Amino acid sequence: MARHMSDEEIVTRILDGDVRAAGRLMRRVDDNLPSARPILAELFSHTGKARIIGVTGNPGSGKSTLVNQLIGTLRKRGHRVGCVAVDPTSPFSGGAILGDRVRMQQHALDKDVFIRSVATRGNLGGISRSTPAIVQVLDAMSFDVIIIETVGVGQDEVDIVRLADTSIVVNVPGLGDDVQASKAGIMEIADLFVINKADRDGVKRLRRELRTMIELGEGFGEEDWKPKVLETIATRGEGVEALADSIFEHLDWLDTHGESERIEQDRLDHYIALIATGQLERMMANIQQESSWKALLGEVSSRETSPYEAANMMLSKLREAIEE
Amino acid sequence: MARHMSDEEIVTRILDGDVRAAGRLMRRVDDNLPSARPILAELFSHTGKARIIGVTGNPGSGKSTLVNQLIGTLRKRGHRVGCVAVDPTSPFSGGAILGDRVRMQQHALDKDVFIRSVATRGNLGGISRSTPAIVQVLDAMSFDVIIIETVGVGQDEVDIVRLADTSIVVNVPGLGDDVQASKAGIMEIADLFVINKADRDGVKRLRRELRTMIELGEGFGEEDWKPKVLETIATRGEGVEALADSIFEHLDWLDTHGESERIEQDRLDHYIALIATGQLERMMANIQQESSWKALLGEVSSRETSPYEAANMMLSKLREAIEE
Repeated sequence: MARHMSDEEIVTRILDGDVRAAGRLMRRVDDNLPSARPILAELFSHTGKARIIGVTGNPGSGKSTLVNQLIGTLRKRGHRVGCVAVDPTSPFSGGAILGDRVRMQQHALDKDVFIRSVATRGNLGGISRSTPAIVQVLDAMSFDVIIIETVGVGQDEVDIVRLADTSIVVNVPGLGDDVQASKAGIMEIADLFVINKADRDGVKRLRRELRTMIELGEGFGEEDWKPKVLETIATRGEGVEALADSIFEHLDWLDTHGESERIEQDRLDHYIALIATGQLERMMANIQQESSWKALLGEVSSRETSPYEAANMMLSKLREAIEE
Repeated sequence: MARHMSDEEIVTRILDGDVRAAGRLMRRVDDNLPSARPILAELFSHTGKARIIGVTGNPGSGKSTLVNQLIGTLRKRGHRVGCVAVDPTSPFSGGAILGDRVRMQQHALDKDVFIRSVATRGNLGGISRSTPAIVQVLDAMSFDVIIIETVGVGQDEVDIVRLADTSIVVNVPGLGDDVQASKAGIMEIADLFVINKADRDGVKRLRRELRTMIELGEGFGEEDWKPKVLETIATRGEGVEALADSIFEHLDWLDTHGESERIEQDRLDHYIALIATGQLERMMANIQQESSWKALLGEVSSRETSPYEAANMMLSKLREAIEE
């Protein structure tokens, strides 16, 4: 059994970069345990230094290979790199854990790299809720670049990308339009587009499609960042240095245009709302267990009461549940 | 300009199956207008008769073709079929609208078929919030089978599938494991698995994988529904009759095992929580616009106040905002 560590000890160790203490806290975050909260609150004053890079792309886009290469490049430039990989995996496949191990091997001896997988487990808002907390822990550990890697589909993942200073969308040539369309929503918020597997047929077409999409997007003023299109062959490391250059170019642009502060405030605003929503959902789940609620549900089921009246009842019950 | 219709008139017309009145209400639902609410509340007492079928599958699985064929088969059996197609589409591609038109053509002259696309538009929880309301409208219009079609990735979509009486997951042979894994979360709640494009290489392997997955899942007791694996070639209509048979077999099973009532109650419970959450989010958005909130956010940004303290402030402000 693991030795007991006080909250204070966990905080001190995490600030010292202790991987085991961090892992312990992250498990509490994953399991949504209230005991994570005082520690996260304590760590918070030590955060706000890291730059956050979001990388999204469909399964098969080679996104994980690209991220691995990018980690290598960033390490050569002297950065300490944290990575949160959000993967919708099955309890059957155990994919997140396996993937983690394979990828950890490559950077296993490097204490300046920390890779953490977040499994979705099908719980409501689970990813978007735990990811910001895990990013905070990495930030407090003085990882100065934090990469959030997601499969770019679904609202939760759009939210995650919104956490990032720089958002990168990875595409591959030769996939149908259908697949491209499935990444919509993410497309609109990308700062950099990467065409990975750029030795494949269809690069020219994809490049043209992306450029047209960028031109058709919001009218870019002189002062706006215009998304770039880059090409990589991640398996051979080609184009990864140029990608790193573009990331820092974008981060500099954010700094010189006062955008970094705005992103940080949006990120915190979003995070605060997530914490509040999480608490409301817990209260709601408790109310849904009450016998009086079950009785009300019976009335809705028999069409005596409408769901809208019931929602109002829920709100008054929540009002009572929120302590002054 | 469209003639003004009173709420009462819209209700009467929708109950009479008027497609234009229904379309008008659905646009209000899409736009999240509060004016939709009294009408939906009025319609509610006329709902609860339809059976809801969820169909999910990756882009490229041929899911839309399969659904179109299924609609044809159900029509031949005398059912009136509503369909809600949830597609993450871009404002650039306009995919949902285009797809809608193409598909509508096939059933355009049939007043007993109603197909409605719900675009995601990247708004938080947008799909999962409008879909139940649109299903309600179709139910009130006396469509007795309602198909909800989604791309099977993301939490929002898992939630949509949870609305269904019967959940169908469409797979295709020959895709990598990566793609299969991306549908996880949905896999666990499927009642029927369809292998579409069953004339392709890799059918045997996929069938074996699915069966193994089913066996590895929750231990099925004598009394449990054991997910079935079916094969179709949707482009030629092959296997669609057998799929329809299996759907009704599953629905009968639900009825004889008292599961239909449980699903209906869960569905309503979930819907009520969605309505309440929607109202809370609106209140939260208003609070986030207040100057006192912006000031607090500045304190969080400068690390004087933690996000957890700020979340508590948000909860007290919400408490005030919820009227007795």
